Amino acid sequence: MIEKSLYENYEISFSDTATPKTEDYLFVFNDERELYLTSDKELAKDLNDFDVEFCLLIGQYNGKDAFVVNVKGNESFYPLQEVYEFNHDLYHIAGKAVLVRDWYISHRFCGRCGTPTKLDEKDMMLKCPECGQNHYPRIAPAIIVAIRKGNELLMAKHSYHDNIRYALIAGFVEPGEGIEEAVHREVLEEVGVKIKNLKYQRSQSWPFPNSLMLAFTAEYDSGEIKVDGDEILKAKWFKKDEIIRYGSDISISDWLIQEFIDSV
Amino acid sequence: MIEKSLYENYEISFSDTATPKTEDYLFVFNDERELYLTSDKELAKDLNDFDVEFCLLIGQYNGKDAFVVNVKGNESFYPLQEVYEFNHDLYHIAGKAVLVRDWYISHRFCGRCGTPTKLDEKDMMLKCPECGQNHYPRIAPAIIVAIRKGNELLMAKHSYHDNIRYALIAGFVEPGEGIEEAVHREVLEEVGVKIKNLKYQRSQSWPFPNSLMLAFTAEYDSGEIKVDGDEILKAKWFKKDEIIRYGSDISISDWLIQEFIDSV
Repeated sequence: MIEKSLYENYEISFSDTATPKTEDYLFVFNDERELYLTSDKELAKDLNDFDVEFCLLIGQYNGKDAFVVNVKGNESFYPLQEVYEFNHDLYHIAGKAVLVRDWYISHRFCGRCGTPTKLDEKDMMLKCPECGQNHYPRIAPAIIVAIRKGNELLMAKHSYHDNIRYALIAGFVEPGEGIEEAVHREVLEEVGVKIKNLKYQRSQSWPFPNSLMLAFTAEYDSGEIKVDGDEILKAKWFKKDEIIRYGSDISISDWLIQEFIDSV
Repeated sequence: MIEKSLYENYEISFSDTATPKTEDYLFVFNDERELYLTSDKELAKDLNDFDVEFCLLIGQYNGKDAFVVNVKGNESFYPLQEVYEFNHDLYHIAGKAVLVRDWYISHRFCGRCGTPTKLDEKDMMLKCPECGQNHYPRIAPAIIVAIRKGNELLMAKHSYHDNIRYALIAGFVEPGEGIEEAVHREVLEEVGVKIKNLKYQRSQSWPFPNSLMLAFTAEYDSGEIKVDGDEILKAKWFKKDEIIRYGSDISISDWLIQEFIDSV
């Protein structure tokens, strides 16, 4: 039902009063941002049995209307990471839909003056009728970097991970800095070392909740590993055999680690 | 007074009740986002003569407190582009300060539930005491690309430019896409051609109003130039002698165009 080619055939248009027809694309989420799928792992066919909170027309794919819907419920809902494991294309397009959902939920009031906002029909924009402020979707650019010293890779334990495990150095870009500056700053802040030969590799939308991941490789330059014990608990150099892999290749982090393993 | 080394010695902390002391850094802006400077082109020394709307402690530079202040007024205020022309370091640090100002102004109310937000002291975050939503600064990632065909560069006239002139293809990254996808999509949407050999070059914070510019080069692949006449008025291939340059080297666009000129 969902194919990769759909991405290139998306025409934007918005309405919060339109009603879905049979054959439309229905991205039905619950409050946990999980996607409803039928027993055949297809999108919902209609909204008959749902307790609908809102139903938003988000545009057309190949001429058919697409809706983002938020409902109450948890049966037959799938976390997007799980959707990825059985259908990559569906994951990518639902990952876009959930970001539209979040934008609509989180900009119902103007952050500047508190007035309820109004939906624009042609742009992904909620407008304030009082002060005129436009509210676009929020994308949070973030960097992630694989730092190498000889045949070893630097990884750290972040205190905010649910399951304590070692991961690559990563962090959000701050206002006023470029992405290369963000990498140097984060590395220095988190593990206290300097890096060189920083090279951009690739990017990925990461909708957990709304990051744009920008992946780099770099080489160790100087300094001793020093962690703050607060945000970062530990950090150390790993040989490839010491790295514990997790089952999925969903994230750009997995790709960076695999590239390192394949290269040593 | 402001030097580049300050960027690396910034400790974040926030307060909307602290009062500036002599010797603190005072980034005083007006409602047009212009920066107040003394007759010596230095930051304000105190707030005595200002009609202050708010005064926000944003942290410490080299141990001295720094404040972002919004006031009424327009005498001795300078647009940031103008600041750049006489002091690059001051431009960069004021460019960060103005983004903090904008974040504080534009998240006074929770976009989700409309409740007035509260300042966090340790993170650049305004919290909703009602629904718990955290509001971080908004950075809008955007791509810009220099597309080359032999010794020619593709430029287009955008309808939204105040002064109608030719510029490189650029646009905002959309939710759910990577930055390379954003380039291919924008180029196809704006000028109807396909590109190849897309290569990331560098990035730049562009605080007009809050973009993170991600610069690419690419080569023309296929298709005829076709513009919509709405967002894009015209587009064509330029030989280097046909490109009209503007005085400043402030933007990453200027850098991309100069790189093209230097290479042919």
